Amino acid sequence: MKYSKLFPKTLREPKRDMVAVSHKLLYMAGFVRELSAGRYELLPLGMRVFQKLVNLIDKEMEAIDSQRFSIPLLQPIEFWQKSNRDKAWGSLLMKIKDRNESEFALSATGEGIVTEMVKESSPSHKDLPIILHQFIAKFRDEMRPRGGLLRVREFVMKDAYSFHTSEEDFMKTYQDFYQAYSRICDKLELTYYPCIADSGALGGDYCHEFQIPCEAGEDKIVKCDSCNYAANIEKSEFVRDEVNKDQELKFYQIVDLPTNVAKIKELAKHYGIPENCFIKNVVYKTKSGKLVIATVTGNIEVNGFKLAKLVGEDELELATAEDLASIGAKTGFVHSWGYEEHKKKIIFVVDESITKAKNLYGGYKTGTTDPINVNYGRDFSADLVGDIADPYDDALCKSCKKGKLKIIRAVEFGHIFKYDHFYTKHHDGCFIDKDGNKKLMYMGAYGIGIERAMAILVESHHDAKGIIWPKIVAPYQVHLIEIKISAQEIYNKLRDAGIEVLWDETDISAGQKFANADLIGIPVRLVVSEKTGDKIEYKERNSDKVELLNIEDVIKRIA
Amino acid sequence: MKYSKLFPKTLREPKRDMVAVSHKLLYMAGFVRELSAGRYELLPLGMRVFQKLVNLIDKEMEAIDSQRFSIPLLQPIEFWQKSNRDKAWGSLLMKIKDRNESEFALSATGEGIVTEMVKESSPSHKDLPIILHQFIAKFRDEMRPRGGLLRVREFVMKDAYSFHTSEEDFMKTYQDFYQAYSRICDKLELTYYPCIADSGALGGDYCHEFQIPCEAGEDKIVKCDSCNYAANIEKSEFVRDEVNKDQELKFYQIVDLPTNVAKIKELAKHYGIPENCFIKNVVYKTKSGKLVIATVTGNIEVNGFKLAKLVGEDELELATAEDLASIGAKTGFVHSWGYEEHKKKIIFVVDESITKAKNLYGGYKTGTTDPINVNYGRDFSADLVGDIADPYDDALCKSCKKGKLKIIRAVEFGHIFKYDHFYTKHHDGCFIDKDGNKKLMYMGAYGIGIERAMAILVESHHDAKGIIWPKIVAPYQVHLIEIKISAQEIYNKLRDAGIEVLWDETDISAGQKFANADLIGIPVRLVVSEKTGDKIEYKERNSDKVELLNIEDVIKRIA
Repeated sequence: MKYSKLFPKTLREPKRDMVAVSHKLLYMAGFVRELSAGRYELLPLGMRVFQKLVNLIDKEMEAIDSQRFSIPLLQPIEFWQKSNRDKAWGSLLMKIKDRNESEFALSATGEGIVTEMVKESSPSHKDLPIILHQFIAKFRDEMRPRGGLLRVREFVMKDAYSFHTSEEDFMKTYQDFYQAYSRICDKLELTYYPCIADSGALGGDYCHEFQIPCEAGEDKIVKCDSCNYAANIEKSEFVRDEVNKDQELKFYQIVDLPTNVAKIKELAKHYGIPENCFIKNVVYKTKSGKLVIATVTGNIEVNGFKLAKLVGEDELELATAEDLASIGAKTGFVHSWGYEEHKKKIIFVVDESITKAKNLYGGYKTGTTDPINVNYGRDFSADLVGDIADPYDDALCKSCKKGKLKIIRAVEFGHIFKYDHFYTKHHDGCFIDKDGNKKLMYMGAYGIGIERAMAILVESHHDAKGIIWPKIVAPYQVHLIEIKISAQEIYNKLRDAGIEVLWDETDISAGQKFANADLIGIPVRLVVSEKTGDKIEYKERNSDKVELLNIEDVIKRIA
Repeated sequence: MKYSKLFPKTLREPKRDMVAVSHKLLYMAGFVRELSAGRYELLPLGMRVFQKLVNLIDKEMEAIDSQRFSIPLLQPIEFWQKSNRDKAWGSLLMKIKDRNESEFALSATGEGIVTEMVKESSPSHKDLPIILHQFIAKFRDEMRPRGGLLRVREFVMKDAYSFHTSEEDFMKTYQDFYQAYSRICDKLELTYYPCIADSGALGGDYCHEFQIPCEAGEDKIVKCDSCNYAANIEKSEFVRDEVNKDQELKFYQIVDLPTNVAKIKELAKHYGIPENCFIKNVVYKTKSGKLVIATVTGNIEVNGFKLAKLVGEDELELATAEDLASIGAKTGFVHSWGYEEHKKKIIFVVDESITKAKNLYGGYKTGTTDPINVNYGRDFSADLVGDIADPYDDALCKSCKKGKLKIIRAVEFGHIFKYDHFYTKHHDGCFIDKDGNKKLMYMGAYGIGIERAMAILVESHHDAKGIIWPKIVAPYQVHLIEIKISAQEIYNKLRDAGIEVLWDETDISAGQKFANADLIGIPVRLVVSEKTGDKIEYKERNSDKVELLNIEDVIKRIA
């Protein structure tokens, strides 16, 4: 490919509103353009990377006996309604009516349609497992697309689905996908953590996210520095301190406390004891207006997602000063028990950190007093007890009971789901077993967003000058630069050797050509000039080493 | 691929409502399923053909220096409005609003968006031509999808766009696409006719359709049996008979005619002269309610599309009895002139067949009389004269003036368009020329529908037993059947040789296996049984010859 013909050319500056480094570099290097918020054009360089990603993933899918297929993008709404997914997806799901007033959902995920498709083939136990994958557009009407290709409103997903006679058979396929996703990440030279996670609106009860460390990512994960444990923060577990473990239970007492000593830090200083010895309350509100008083030890933050799950709500809001006033409370002086007159309006929830501790301070602070030596079970009790806390850096790993947890910002590369009978139950997705009986199929699903994978690659592989593509998905293998003399012959030889070459034969300056090569990020840069004589200057994008080689050696290195 | 694992298995019967043979075979052989009217799932066998078609076309596009890209499927409506395409596409175009009430058109074609994209790159004359292609979904809300994959509401199109400094430069690329499309048809072993055609709602002023003869097709084309001339019937030209060429102009006369002699056949019999000696009128109506009286010789049919173009309307309807009554006319007794009181309401149009003829009969029939020796120019004249006629079998070719035209039912495989400045004008799509001046780019576009191409292949390549795939797009290269003994070793050897094999290792009957192989249509069938001993039975799908070969020879034949 001649650089003069490449559409379009590089740009020297990002746009002002671009934040993520992948967004800036993919824009400046000419890989993508935003058509409207969260909807991107893939330009020729971007499309080459995209296709290589698709081919790489497709091959890994074929290697685990998945068959490629595709479904329409406009999907009869009835198939979404069968499992109530139209409501579960809410405003993310886009809908349209055709000329006959038939309503369709725009492809957002494929479980329902694929379950119907497989069911219609009347599978017997001999036909199972059925493992299918596709690469099709997904439409998600995100409130706020962000980070360039990291979160968009329209993208292509590799989504795969598997159907089984039993959980045991499913688990083999789940492991196959787990391994395939690991191989894909390895081939893309990505650091990754398969994290235990929540499946959200997709349904299902068990899943792993393949998370990639990334400053611009919107997820937080925890990983153990000793064992393999990794989890999305919403699903993470950690061991609580057993506060005052060796103490006897002391007498409950009320002591004086100045009004202006309210925050945990102030209390710790005032009493001269660690933060984990205090009771902290955070108040949330359910959709129906109930208040949830969440109680943790002072060293811990409440995780709203875990709390909502425990309470059985889709989501919770933080309570306002007005909400607190409605039960006679106020910020900094919320109680972990009491409010007898408002009992019906309140759900008391305590974290395991509270039940494991002894002789805590606080939990019923008034303007001038504070209780001390408070013990759960003896002095108060809650409506619900469970894990409602965010882990923190250096918390003890619950999995190995040795390692310390680290909290990392990350972005989801892929996701594998165990659905059990969630969809097959709603769609009557049955097979005929050995004895001729109808039984529900056991199901899993497995996704990778392709555009996001491109962005993740750039987030993981770049330097101050530009992108550094892993060889396996680089748009070209070689960026050939000529300076003042023609590289036509070299170009022909490389092409004849089956090497993909971007050949800068323009008359722009050498400096500009080098800057473009660094920005675009093709793994090998070759320079032909009067200075190089019969030889060719060879430099890899991720190294500073420059060598003079003859064409045969260049080809050997690359091919 | 083991047949036992193939999703789904073949079916023995088509569905009742299936008419086109491609629809029946693709359904029974397990290549596609209809999810809702005109929206199809591609099953694994179908997807393999689909991908091979995409790869084949993609390579041909790359060979003519086209660069692959893609645009979003939801496209801001403003870009459609710039060239008034939202109105021109009418009810075919689907529209949707997102959560912010922004309106989008669902991808139906890409000219507007692509013109904007190219314009935004601020191209100079050095960057042109820019040639781009993509494979993306198109949504067209067809009134009546039909023929299975022949006309659908959702499909993938290879659409390409080219931008040029001049018409001269454009014509080179147009020729490149013409040749590329010809090569693609050749590789797919298709008989094809590049037909001069009309570009309809897409705009533009010159184009070729690549038409494939097909009984189930909805187009009619004409082709010359002597020269290369071929055209869509709407754009076809033919030489009109010079009726009574050697006669002198005779005196205009009114003669008696029985009321019941009205149709051309009856008149020809009554007078004992050929059908082309009569004047025939057909009446249409414009959207604004004007009547169009179209006059042709008795041997010819009016082509409503040509007539509408001549009159300057998008479309015309046939007039009703009521419409005729409104000017005092009735069916069978419409006049080619007169109606003085209704002049403002009528457009008289005559075909060239009338102006070239002498001494015609009719044109002003009353209940009991008929004019004879009617001559255009002397006895009457029209508001418009032009080509408003359907060609007919054996009409004289206007191109070579020797051959006879044949009318053929066909289906459009691909379409190449000359747009001139139609889109660049509306989108201000400019480049900077050598002298630094802004100039409009000259533009073309080029499309192939992939699912329809699959259907066309089956329409063109099948027999009573099933599909006969051309090698280049067959889902597998070999259909390996084992009868009572295992073909595992042969399967392994074929796979090791890089051959794609569908291996029927099930315990269904030999007859059933053969029937499936014929239905699915893989080019080579191999049979391993006790009977074949060390050898393998080799048979090509499109031949009856059966040979016994050893594995090495089999591999040589196929690879």
